[in-house]
Amino acid sequence: MSAQDAPVLEHGPCANSKEWASQLETLKGLPESYSLSKTLVFKPKTPKTQTATLVVVVALEDTTTPSSEIQKTLDTKDTRMANEDAVNAALGVKPTDVSPLTITKDNSSAVQVLLDQRLVDAPKVAIHPSGSSTTSFVSGADLKLYLEETGVRVTVHTFNTATIERRNEEKPKVDLQKAPTKSTRAADARIPDAELIGITTQKEIDFSNWYQQVLTKGDMLEYYDISGCYILKPWSYGIWEKVQDWFNINIKSIGVENCYFPMFVSSRVLEREKDHIEGFAPEVAWVTKAGQNELEEHIAIRPTSETVMYPYYAKWIRSHRDLPLKLNQWNSVVRWEFKHPQPFLRTREFLWQEGHTAHISQRSAEEEVLQILDWYADIYSELLAVPTIKGRKTENEKFAGGLFTTTCEGYIPTTGRGIQGATSHCLGQNFSKMFNIIVEDPSWKEGDPEEAKKLFVWQNSWGLSTRVIGVMTMIHGDNKGLVIPPRVAQYQVVIVPCGLTAKTTDEERKKLLGGVEDIASTLSKAGIRVKADTRDTYSPGYKFNDWELKGVPVRLEFGPKDMEKKQVLSARRDTGIKAGIPLSGLAEKVQALLDTIQKDLYDKAKKAYDEHTVIVKKWENFTPALNAKNVVLMPHCDRDECEDEVKERSKGRKDDDDAPEDAKAPSMGAKSLCIPFDQPKGDDAIIPGTTKCAQCGENAKHYTLFGRSY
Amino acid sequence: MSAQDAPVLEHGPCANSKEWASQLETLKGLPESYSLSKTLVFKPKTPKTQTATLVVVVALEDTTTPSSEIQKTLDTKDTRMANEDAVNAALGVKPTDVSPLTITKDNSSAVQVLLDQRLVDAPKVAIHPSGSSTTSFVSGADLKLYLEETGVRVTVHTFNTATIERRNEEKPKVDLQKAPTKSTRAADARIPDAELIGITTQKEIDFSNWYQQVLTKGDMLEYYDISGCYILKPWSYGIWEKVQDWFNINIKSIGVENCYFPMFVSSRVLEREKDHIEGFAPEVAWVTKAGQNELEEHIAIRPTSETVMYPYYAKWIRSHRDLPLKLNQWNSVVRWEFKHPQPFLRTREFLWQEGHTAHISQRSAEEEVLQILDWYADIYSELLAVPTIKGRKTENEKFAGGLFTTTCEGYIPTTGRGIQGATSHCLGQNFSKMFNIIVEDPSWKEGDPEEAKKLFVWQNSWGLSTRVIGVMTMIHGDNKGLVIPPRVAQYQVVIVPCGLTAKTTDEERKKLLGGVEDIASTLSKAGIRVKADTRDTYSPGYKFNDWELKGVPVRLEFGPKDMEKKQVLSARRDTGIKAGIPLSGLAEKVQALLDTIQKDLYDKAKKAYDEHTVIVKKWENFTPALNAKNVVLMPHCDRDECEDEVKERSKGRKDDDDAPEDAKAPSMGAKSLCIPFDQPKGDDAIIPGTTKCAQCGENAKHYTLFGRSY
Ligand SMILES: [Zn+2]
Ligand SMILES: [Zn+2]
Repeated sequence: MSAQDAPVLEHGPCANSKEWASQLETLKGLPESYSLSKTLVFKPKTPKTQTATLVVVVALEDTTTPSSEIQKTLDTKDTRMANEDAVNAALGVKPTDVSPLTITKDNSSAVQVLLDQRLVDAPKVAIHPSGSSTTSFVSGADLKLYLEETGVRVTVHTFNTATIERRNEEKPKVDLQKAPTKSTRAADARIPDAELIGITTQKEIDFSNWYQQVLTKGDMLEYYDISGCYILKPWSYGIWEKVQDWFNINIKSIGVENCYFPMFVSSRVLEREKDHIEGFAPEVAWVTKAGQNELEEHIAIRPTSETVMYPYYAKWIRSHRDLPLKLNQWNSVVRWEFKHPQPFLRTREFLWQEGHTAHISQRSAEEEVLQILDWYADIYSELLAVPTIKGRKTENEKFAGGLFTTTCEGYIPTTGRGIQGATSHCLGQNFSKMFNIIVEDPSWKEGDPEEAKKLFVWQNSWGLSTRVIGVMTMIHGDNKGLVIPPRVAQYQVVIVPCGLTAKTTDEERKKLLGGVEDIASTLSKAGIRVKADTRDTYSPGYKFNDWELKGVPVRLEFGPKDMEKKQVLSARRDTGIKAGIPLSGLAEKVQALLDTIQKDLYDKAKKAYDEHTVIVKKWENFTPALNAKNVVLMPHCDRDECEDEVKERSKGRKDDDDAPEDAKAPSMGAKSLCIPFDQPKGDDAIIPGTTKCAQCGENAKHYTLFGRSY
Repeated sequence: MSAQDAPVLEHGPCANSKEWASQLETLKGLPESYSLSKTLVFKPKTPKTQTATLVVVVALEDTTTPSSEIQKTLDTKDTRMANEDAVNAALGVKPTDVSPLTITKDNSSAVQVLLDQRLVDAPKVAIHPSGSSTTSFVSGADLKLYLEETGVRVTVHTFNTATIERRNEEKPKVDLQKAPTKSTRAADARIPDAELIGITTQKEIDFSNWYQQVLTKGDMLEYYDISGCYILKPWSYGIWEKVQDWFNINIKSIGVENCYFPMFVSSRVLEREKDHIEGFAPEVAWVTKAGQNELEEHIAIRPTSETVMYPYYAKWIRSHRDLPLKLNQWNSVVRWEFKHPQPFLRTREFLWQEGHTAHISQRSAEEEVLQILDWYADIYSELLAVPTIKGRKTENEKFAGGLFTTTCEGYIPTTGRGIQGATSHCLGQNFSKMFNIIVEDPSWKEGDPEEAKKLFVWQNSWGLSTRVIGVMTMIHGDNKGLVIPPRVAQYQVVIVPCGLTAKTTDEERKKLLGGVEDIASTLSKAGIRVKADTRDTYSPGYKFNDWELKGVPVRLEFGPKDMEKKQVLSARRDTGIKAGIPLSGLAEKVQALLDTIQKDLYDKAKKAYDEHTVIVKKWENFTPALNAKNVVLMPHCDRDECEDEVKERSKGRKDDDDAPEDAKAPSMGAKSLCIPFDQPKGDDAIIPGTTKCAQCGENAKHYTLFGRSY
């Protein structure tokens, strides 16, 4: 059957391959197994006088197709993902709708094709015959034939996947029916070549693909069939539980109490604080129907709970004796963003805590804001081994409707981008004035003006979300998978029995496994979270890889020889360093090792952050510093307009606008991340009236931290 | 100004006075203070040949107007709330829209009015001039005048609120601006007659009003401006946290892991399991809009997560080695019921946990179902001091789409109604067949039929919700407020310093408060949750009432004389019994007292349940037993149709159908609550083939527990 005549299945639209896979899962009557394809359009740099010939790369979804390799193969220059306009001009469709069949005799001269040899060899390949909500299954050979018949220039290329560290050459085909096949799943037999698939992309080469893989293959997260929503599997949710426990203890120590407010808000209430809601309105999800009934009033799902809670604060707070009121809730909120979603970082529903407190004085409110910010920074540094820089947001970047926002800002070395960690806002009296949350001022005395009696309370709100898990993953993970800091790891130690062979007697085996259980029990009693992996159907090598992928901090290997020598062999996940540990005093030594790993992970990330936080006093050095993956401390005048200028002027050259969202990062303008509390000192210190803003030349007020950011 | 000419304010519709108060809170320009009114329509029993003259009771919202008192005053018989049809026929509006102004010259002969003297005396009364979404403010005197001018018969009556135990004669007026008034709130002055308002209704007389009061005044819950949604304040949420902690430890011990699935489900996925979804479909809330954009596909908010999760179970479970898979999540679900909502028992959003597990065998699944049920029953008995009866649901009452449902059923002595506690379902293979969750049967051998290789997994799902808090409240609460069992109380002990007078020197005061702190610290170190109430603006009497209202199990009073005698005076919340406790060995004795209270609360509830669980073998005794507030163990044939007959035949007389939802309970038919695991034995035991079903006379299979229920 020729490629263009294959039957067409219809389904929902899909923005990426994960969504495509999900969409296909909902269909019946698919082939037993098949491979997803991808069709990417690139634009080489071309002299202005010429029209660019776009490069269409047609490959299996899991083939890595770095632009460097495309350039080399086709001898093109500066080849980047083509933007929507360019794709549309050449092929008449959106980038997500492009498929091999988009290329026809009519447009074949505007493009050339680079065809993946693996795809050519594949017997069943899923393509989008006419847009992302359609799928056909064709053979790679037929597809090649089709393309050749259009007259387009086709180059078949074997992408150099060998340079990429992988444990297994073949990723399993998507197998819809999921029936175990005879070849791999004989019951109760050891699986000699179990197909554990490691990370197939390098963190340094394709960061966003690496991030997806490390999360899904590391068992943290599953993509969900609604775009922007994700399933938090126990491996990540357990980290969240540890963050919750730690934070609960701390906030309860200052009198914060947990509670639960409804997830629904009436439109009337939601829209009460105009400044505040303006930022959220385009992202609010609306319930308009229940069963078959249209609701009389449309009801919003909370994007955050200020307007949900504060009418009740007005009711409950009737006297200064009711202050401070400190409530917190652990819940999920919904912000229906239409930008490209990213697990943990930008999701349509996410888990967080939101604290909302009311105080009698600005001082009391401000003290708390900073206390909470310290705890947020501690969650990053102490639990997640992630350094952050604490500071205040500029007016441009603060929480809408609040007085000022404090933040702790992280840094992702691989991309050189800053990332907001968590924010603690002082709302001042803005909301209390809007919601009429007042008490009688206890310091009011007879004779004072009557008006002075009325005291609008001072409020804070502060939130930390599951984003912390994403930041942790991005910073510590490597090309073998996750690296989880010991303090938040579900299992801190995994013990793998080794050296069991066909010749091992039952008694020897029993003895060894008994030894493993003893070790587990010793560690567990010492409060170490330990897992003995005694699965008898997997080889030690498989298990090593499996736990490395999942990021368990320490692996202990225990074989007959170790038993003789009364020791275990330890392997650190972060460094790979192996060392013997005597069984006597094991728990203390393992605990010490865990503490060392925790510290080393932090130190390594701190070193990277420090080295990439550079002071720039002259504008001409600003963008080059960003381009070298730095965040920049720049003397700044604190003016909004100047901040906008910084962003504008630090964008890449206009030519680069062709690049899509992901690839665009390097040419994105720099945002202000915060005005760090800890300002450069000594020779670098700002001299009021003398030090000038590096961008506009006016007097500098503070060093502001700028960066390209998430 | 005459009543009908008062300005009309418009707002959202309101089904009850709580909603009305909330609606008004959103408006501007209201009077400084006012009282809400209520207008209730009753129908006396009238010979069939006559048309009933309805009784319209017009009263302040917080005046208790028992039907017994109405009957006595107006000399009517069997006077009950009139149903919608009757109200509409006489007055042309819905019951919630009735107001004094609904009565006009045209319909004044169809009704008579009973007017509350308190309302007549009130200067500003809120009424609904034309339907529940309108409000006017009029004086009670003008209202009386208006009614008299319509020609309707008006009786003014002082309702006998003195019979009801209250701490304070006047409930505070709704005071919108909430500005503290000079008279009661001079800063830093002790409040001599602080207006702590106790429960103003008796549990035995108006249970549903009592329940609302005990929850709101006991600080558990706040009504929310969206009907059916409630705010869980820290006082109740803390109980939930204790239930969570206890249950988490237990389920984790059998390998259950916590996780989080999205709250959204696509319609396609939601509707996949037809039997299952049929029950939920009319209550599903739909998101159809985000910001200003209509969504292409409407998205449901999960009413429960079977269909959310199981497509992923199909993906994750690829071999018998992946079994058992045991996941749990703590989340909120939404069921947009249109029946009358009730806090904790029937709410549109509620918090719960839902466990979803997959097993290789029926046996493994069934073992777990029962283990979980035991833990649910333990949460009730051990934590909440609530007895339940464990059993299996009948086919009629089981979870739709499952194999069988186990349940623990509670009992509310005041109303004589049963209440479902929590359910643990064995889903069998129904869902795995629908979602194609299969593994290769490890017991399959070469030569067995190929088809036998495919094993559909066995599944369970089990859930327990914040309903437990409602059940606990209904059972233990009394006319002084909440009674919280020690094991779940946020504070188990409150210490109140006593005997401080104007003559007390600063030194004596300091010494006494030092003693209070010492006691608190002693108890706290022993792991007792203790609060020292050292607020200096409230009298001890106020504090006693306050903590009684909130249900703290033990109060310790400590005054100068106690200090001399080296003792404290303890008062039990449940019994009121007071006893001195020497300071030496205080912690042990207080702990013992807490243990005794926990046990006594359970024993008391158990005794009530036992005494009201009666065996009925003859049908003629069935309804009388229900009427005497019993649940009934009846030999039953296990047939669905017979069960329907039981319900039908145990309904009250037809005349009673006029009664509204709440009052209807006594005439509601009996549902099967469960087939208890613990069947009557000895002389009562069912003899197969001999014992007959009490309803239909066929052979009895089991004793089934029937009851009027929530
Ligand atoms: Zn400037
Ligand atoms: Zn029967």
